[in-house]
Amino acid sequence: MPIQSIDPKTGTTLTEPFQDSSLAEINELVEKSQAAFEEWAEASSDDRAKVLTAIANVLDENVEELAKLADQETALGMPRLIGEVARTTFQLRLFASELTKKELLREDFDEKVEGAPPQGRPQLDRRWVALGPVAVFGASNFPFAFGELGGDTASALAAGCTVVVKEHPAHAQLAQKVVELARGAINAAGFNENILLSVRGFQAGSELVKHKLIKACGFTGSQAAGRALFDLAVSREVPIPFYGELGSINPVFVTENAAKERASEIAQGFVASFTLGAGQFCTKPSLILVPESSNFEAETIKAIDPMSFSTLLTPDIQNKFLKDVALVTSKTGVKTLLEPKAKADGYGVSIGLMSVTLKDFLANLHEISHECFGPIALVVTYQDESELLTVAKQLEGALVTTFHAALPHDEEILKKLTKISKHRAGRLVLNGWPTGVAVTRAQHHGGPYPASTNVLFTSVGSYAMMRFVRPVTYQDYPTDLI
Amino acid sequence: MPIQSIDPKTGTTLTEPFQDSSLAEINELVEKSQAAFEEWAEASSDDRAKVLTAIANVLDENVEELAKLADQETALGMPRLIGEVARTTFQLRLFASELTKKELLREDFDEKVEGAPPQGRPQLDRRWVALGPVAVFGASNFPFAFGELGGDTASALAAGCTVVVKEHPAHAQLAQKVVELARGAINAAGFNENILLSVRGFQAGSELVKHKLIKACGFTGSQAAGRALFDLAVSREVPIPFYGELGSINPVFVTENAAKERASEIAQGFVASFTLGAGQFCTKPSLILVPESSNFEAETIKAIDPMSFSTLLTPDIQNKFLKDVALVTSKTGVKTLLEPKAKADGYGVSIGLMSVTLKDFLANLHEISHECFGPIALVVTYQDESELLTVAKQLEGALVTTFHAALPHDEEILKKLTKISKHRAGRLVLNGWPTGVAVTRAQHHGGPYPASTNVLFTSVGSYAMMRFVRPVTYQDYPTDLI
Repeated sequence: MPIQSIDPKTGTTLTEPFQDSSLAEINELVEKSQAAFEEWAEASSDDRAKVLTAIANVLDENVEELAKLADQETALGMPRLIGEVARTTFQLRLFASELTKKELLREDFDEKVEGAPPQGRPQLDRRWVALGPVAVFGASNFPFAFGELGGDTASALAAGCTVVVKEHPAHAQLAQKVVELARGAINAAGFNENILLSVRGFQAGSELVKHKLIKACGFTGSQAAGRALFDLAVSREVPIPFYGELGSINPVFVTENAAKERASEIAQGFVASFTLGAGQFCTKPSLILVPESSNFEAETIKAIDPMSFSTLLTPDIQNKFLKDVALVTSKTGVKTLLEPKAKADGYGVSIGLMSVTLKDFLANLHEISHECFGPIALVVTYQDESELLTVAKQLEGALVTTFHAALPHDEEILKKLTKISKHRAGRLVLNGWPTGVAVTRAQHHGGPYPASTNVLFTSVGSYAMMRFVRPVTYQDYPTDLI
Repeated sequence: MPIQSIDPKTGTTLTEPFQDSSLAEINELVEKSQAAFEEWAEASSDDRAKVLTAIANVLDENVEELAKLADQETALGMPRLIGEVARTTFQLRLFASELTKKELLREDFDEKVEGAPPQGRPQLDRRWVALGPVAVFGASNFPFAFGELGGDTASALAAGCTVVVKEHPAHAQLAQKVVELARGAINAAGFNENILLSVRGFQAGSELVKHKLIKACGFTGSQAAGRALFDLAVSREVPIPFYGELGSINPVFVTENAAKERASEIAQGFVASFTLGAGQFCTKPSLILVPESSNFEAETIKAIDPMSFSTLLTPDIQNKFLKDVALVTSKTGVKTLLEPKAKADGYGVSIGLMSVTLKDFLANLHEISHECFGPIALVVTYQDESELLTVAKQLEGALVTTFHAALPHDEEILKKLTKISKHRAGRLVLNGWPTGVAVTRAQHHGGPYPASTNVLFTSVGSYAMMRFVRPVTYQDYPTDLI
């Protein structure tokens, strides 16, 4: 099915449709990627840093044009998109800097010890080798930072892998433009531009995951799509690692003291966080637990402009959002405080808000804590703070769990919640908000399923590149032959 | 089906049969493991080291009795089994020493930087958290080192996970004995002995992998069993990491110069390596490529005593061995140089040897390079050394690939073979043998599928414990609350 470039503000098409890649084209591209891999895997880390920097530079040089193109197809707004390009180039340069520092791809060396094992041993050199061509599925909600040239592509290239990107249909023009720019920059830097290639079309995605020469996948997107591709990756004759970042509920726990001290401030921060990017963040806080006795609900409603519409990325996201909200509000005890309304033209919706008592929430936890991707959240009211522990133990895996507490009074409850929640989330935030993921060495953006399909790895920050390398040990090799 | 403890030398049963764990028992044990996990995950690394050392000590104290029990059920011989206990306790102490050194579970810390991202950032503390209860499937061929208290159990406990072991039916008495000893030692050290529990029976294995509270699996065994359990692990509602070490072909490449210089020495080393432990090593070199012009075949036959029988572990292994050998020798061009014969009583077989020309091998590579678990190997004769590169490119994943070369003359061919083979093996050995895996920091025992189901990790050596932890990042947390 040809792919349309669409303006989500109006629903009108922007260009002629783009044709899907054929099976023959996909195969040819993956074979090119493999051919490029054989040299790229041998490139020094300084050379890999050079290429990442060249890609960052070309994005910076074209930031205005790229942000405009992205805004046409995503309606995310120029300031946000210009900022996202900056985040993307920061990310490319972070990997470049890690490669130059040479700390993460640390080598180990055991000297030979004469004698029989276990005391004796041969000489062992543990090094790193890149996995091979990687398939990358970018997201629609971050067309740059988690897009074709986002963290997955940057980290795979940093690792010495080549990348075949599946262009995202929600920004069909932009996808082609950024890949074209990056390939030009790679070539200009003196390297084979086939280390980065792209395919197009729904079927191309599954063909990529199944292709014998593809050795790993990076994915950012919905739970349904991510799980379907994960299932393909692990049911291959030769299964491959599938790094899916699928989004989650990202609960927020507010203690009684915190609600007493600053209900209004928390309510404002909450609304700002769950409506950021039209609520289309994988780290969106979908669920907040507050004391029934507090005026949090009223403060939250006060912080929302019910007449303000934000534009969702695609008709599919808009439809699914409205359907998911209807599903959650159909459950016993769930009240609609503000009903999200769809705009007549384009994919706009207004901000929604739901509430439920903790008792009703627990009675139907799995279905009520269903992710509604878009600008809505659920307020869960508790009677006694100790009930937070019960909820914490029952929630499924999350990218990030947030606590609002008043220290030092709340130390005890916070410690208890932390002890439980660290087994259920990839990141724990204290007195802040989960949205806005810093790209650093100590960042972890992942978490137990369904937050991610591989609980050991992050898709953001320096360690993301460790997903695409594996150790090889050389036994009794002279160092110059390694 | 009740499990029999059997003497493989005679095929006679040693004790009354042991009953399988019931579903209710399995569930109760896993729940106990989860309860123990909640405290064990909080134990300091020094405390974890203490427990591992206590387990090592109790094995050492009972080495004679344990080796005797193991010999009755495995016929691997006292010297080998006493050595294997030493290897196992060395391994437990290696993890203890790594925990005391605190280098591997390295923490990262990013100071807060004022301002908006990407330049600004909150304070981020990246720490490690244990995954949860782990199911461990030990192997029959290393009843200690890869058994109930082998590397998987040691590394999972080291990581702060609890372990539920599936007792191996090929050493039913020993399995119970070592778990009992270890639990006693854990208790005596002042910890909850439920950090180590065991279940019994074929069905118990799949029930464990499917159990909601089990968070990862370690497995050492056959490709068929490993793949079946891997499939279960990844098709759960919440998929879990499955670390399967499945064994492989482990090819050996001999250059023309090396064959000229020392064919006889290589032949002797080869026979010693592929017959070690009755050929029941996952690192057994199943395949050796030698120049047609060399006298390697004759030298190999000379190094084998065709009248010497070695005892396989189980009737299943004996049957599968004979069947697999028949399958390989049925392929066009495969010659039987020495036919392995089955002993009348027990599970003994004599040493076998097969050969094939490189041309015939390439014509049917996938089927001819089929693992025959037991004392047999295949000699592949090449006409021209450059053909080694063609073979290297076509072989499937291996735990270890070995090269015999004469340096410095063979530098060029060795570099080329290394460049290809590092993408197809977890370890590369130069002028040595793949069997006998040293347990060290720089060791890597894994490799591309089918050698392992998770190409990023090792099942031997210090880094094995990284399979059972995941990062968690604390954002803006005061350090004393982490």
